[in-house]
Amino acid sequence: MKHLLSQNEDTIVALATPPGIGAISIIRVSGPDSIAAVDKIFKGRKQISSASTHTIHYGNIIDDNDELIDDVLVSVFRLPNSYTGEDSIEISTHGSPLIVQKIISLLVDNEVRLAEAGEFTKRAFLNGRIDLTQAEAVADIINSNTEASLRGARNQLDGLLSKKVDELRELLVNTSSLIELELDFAEEDIEFMSIKEILANVNRIEKEIDDLLASYSFGRIIKDGVNVALVGKPNVGKSSLLNYLLKESRAIVSEIPGTTRDIIREELTIDGILFRLFDTAGMRAGKDIIEIEGVNRSREAVQNADIVLFLNDATVGLSEDLFSELLGLTSAERILSVVNKIDLVEVESESFDAGISAKTGEGINILFHKLKQKAIGTQNYSEKSAIVSNVRHYDSLRKAKTYLEGARKSIEEKLTGEFIAVDLRNAENALGEVIGKVTSDDILNNIFSKFCIGK
Amino acid sequence: MKHLLSQNEDTIVALATPPGIGAISIIRVSGPDSIAAVDKIFKGRKQISSASTHTIHYGNIIDDNDELIDDVLVSVFRLPNSYTGEDSIEISTHGSPLIVQKIISLLVDNEVRLAEAGEFTKRAFLNGRIDLTQAEAVADIINSNTEASLRGARNQLDGLLSKKVDELRELLVNTSSLIELELDFAEEDIEFMSIKEILANVNRIEKEIDDLLASYSFGRIIKDGVNVALVGKPNVGKSSLLNYLLKESRAIVSEIPGTTRDIIREELTIDGILFRLFDTAGMRAGKDIIEIEGVNRSREAVQNADIVLFLNDATVGLSEDLFSELLGLTSAERILSVVNKIDLVEVESESFDAGISAKTGEGINILFHKLKQKAIGTQNYSEKSAIVSNVRHYDSLRKAKTYLEGARKSIEEKLTGEFIAVDLRNAENALGEVIGKVTSDDILNNIFSKFCIGK
Repeated sequence: MKHLLSQNEDTIVALATPPGIGAISIIRVSGPDSIAAVDKIFKGRKQISSASTHTIHYGNIIDDNDELIDDVLVSVFRLPNSYTGEDSIEISTHGSPLIVQKIISLLVDNEVRLAEAGEFTKRAFLNGRIDLTQAEAVADIINSNTEASLRGARNQLDGLLSKKVDELRELLVNTSSLIELELDFAEEDIEFMSIKEILANVNRIEKEIDDLLASYSFGRIIKDGVNVALVGKPNVGKSSLLNYLLKESRAIVSEIPGTTRDIIREELTIDGILFRLFDTAGMRAGKDIIEIEGVNRSREAVQNADIVLFLNDATVGLSEDLFSELLGLTSAERILSVVNKIDLVEVESESFDAGISAKTGEGINILFHKLKQKAIGTQNYSEKSAIVSNVRHYDSLRKAKTYLEGARKSIEEKLTGEFIAVDLRNAENALGEVIGKVTSDDILNNIFSKFCIGK
Repeated sequence: MKHLLSQNEDTIVALATPPGIGAISIIRVSGPDSIAAVDKIFKGRKQISSASTHTIHYGNIIDDNDELIDDVLVSVFRLPNSYTGEDSIEISTHGSPLIVQKIISLLVDNEVRLAEAGEFTKRAFLNGRIDLTQAEAVADIINSNTEASLRGARNQLDGLLSKKVDELRELLVNTSSLIELELDFAEEDIEFMSIKEILANVNRIEKEIDDLLASYSFGRIIKDGVNVALVGKPNVGKSSLLNYLLKESRAIVSEIPGTTRDIIREELTIDGILFRLFDTAGMRAGKDIIEIEGVNRSREAVQNADIVLFLNDATVGLSEDLFSELLGLTSAERILSVVNKIDLVEVESESFDAGISAKTGEGINILFHKLKQKAIGTQNYSEKSAIVSNVRHYDSLRKAKTYLEGARKSIEEKLTGEFIAVDLRNAENALGEVIGKVTSDDILNNIFSKFCIGK
């Protein structure tokens, strides 16, 4: 892959493991001087400069005063067989922030620069190790907190989206060349032979782009999760339901130490998809809605929710007033009407999407199924489908689609080949943006600045 | 090294890097089945079982459903050349807690057990890779947060204390055998030839133990830091001093990302030694002391302080009443009398240990020097001195000293060799406890349970 960006000639360093105290910390160094720089502070049985790629060496990190900072393991990766595609070193130290700081400082004293956020992955991209969607997937993988988001990011890192987009781009290039052939012969007034073929290609590409665009709502949900507003009148059992759901959820969370720190009380995973529950405790029916405190936040939660879980009491029946109020805030298809306390009273099922008992747990599995169905629809993306989950990709694909529509219009209006060719070329560039074949420093900086340091 | 403890026959796994999101996380596996267990979930260009020690292999971690969990680097360490002395594997994954959890779960499904706190280091000890003081130093190194504490822990990990204690223990063994020789010949009524030599050895060992015991106040301070209570009447400038000190301190703290998270506002490092400042704002002079809120806490801070920084106002002079109150709470040699605002008024210096201006910074360096002197005295331990910083070591050395005193008394009272021999044997065991030549499961569990998981 060729880029207009200048090659990296400096060597960078960063802590690659999470900050804090642990058994081990890893300091990552990459760039042309990485081996020489580490050799200056490392005393082992042999010099790093004479070590083979993918080998590990025990030794000491020594400062300028010959003082031992730590005994470490140094891993050697020689270009191009490293993450960045450059010569790289990983230093495995005792997991003390002070030791990490001292070693990084020593390297900085030896002309190594502190890495910017995402700079290692940016170099991997610039050196052609991965394309742009894959680079973006690296950040998604690190931040994935559900099975589904991990699988989606994994899918993207494995290049499924890249491959699909690249295929469409190739097809566009071929189609453009057909037109250019026509243009060359235009003066000779040869008949516009391949117009059908061109139109067929344009339609086919547009259809595939439509499929990718359609996968975005699914992709976004598996990546970012689903916002669910829990709405109901007082005493319908919102808290009981919340407690029941969270207890179920907790039971699923594995007990491995160090993994459960960041759990937020209001999150729930169903079949690997993250549901973020917002309890709208302040919400009341009818005119009360503007009178009580916190009501704006409740309205906002309903407006922003992907799903509104509208809870009712079986002993009371459907809260018609609250339902019509909800319809003023969101669309009907986002509302999941649920009736609670079916252990107490039998209910007519047609008014509700699901009937549950937060007390006995009856109907909860059906509720889960309905929530999942509401979230991702009945679409069934296999693990091998290309899925769009990134708004940048979505925007570029939309742009490509617009240009394709322009091209089709030109064909239908029998405009000359030049008009068609310009649109096809623009569509091609829009697709190129997705995978980074066409890109700018601004786009790159924007993407990689969102990474953590050390990646 | 031989131990009565059973050998480890199971294989253990843990996250070795700090928990949380980062570029890289490392999962550590150790034990006889570590290579086979990882091979079951790893698909790379070659099998781990055929890999050489200290080599790195790129590949995929695959679950039972053939689903890709992550692409990883696997580092292979074959016995005895690993941290634990066993076959060990380190898996370098994308730094997502979810991925870490999934991979650890996969290994647990393959008969690998979750490691207990400190279990890797415990195995290193049991397999004779390091002795007990060195194992304890590993935990100290990880937790060290100042230059001095790091250097002290480093010194211990490098075996300076072990070496010294082992020397003394050897000398005791030799001395005991002299006595046992005497005992063998006792019936033949041979003259007690070596009594002088035995006494000389006992005295020498006792002297060396005294030196080690004396190093404890220094060792404890470089390891744990110094508690300083900042005391003074209102308006003497306590806050100004605190702000000035902390600003100075902040300037020293390096700007490397990820290392400054755990800084607590009230800590200050002088020449690598940690000073923990307790502001006793609630403290007043005279009878007021029992009347105001928070006064108990202030009294406690003074009582627990290694140093009481007693601040006075140059425009007012020494607060005699507060000084005599302090003498009721702590000893005179712990009090550092300092006079502030010397930019405003000239003061007679004999009443004070140091004169400063928290406004201009005048005298602050002298204050630093005096604080350090108060903290560690005029003792000057070189980097090559054996230093005791661990209360367990201190207690065992005290015990050894008591037995040696008993032995000397027996010699002076001309008791028979048996009495002397028993005391020497006990002293020998006490020294053996320090380095772990004599140990029990209880002691070991107590030591290693304080480690973090993964170490």
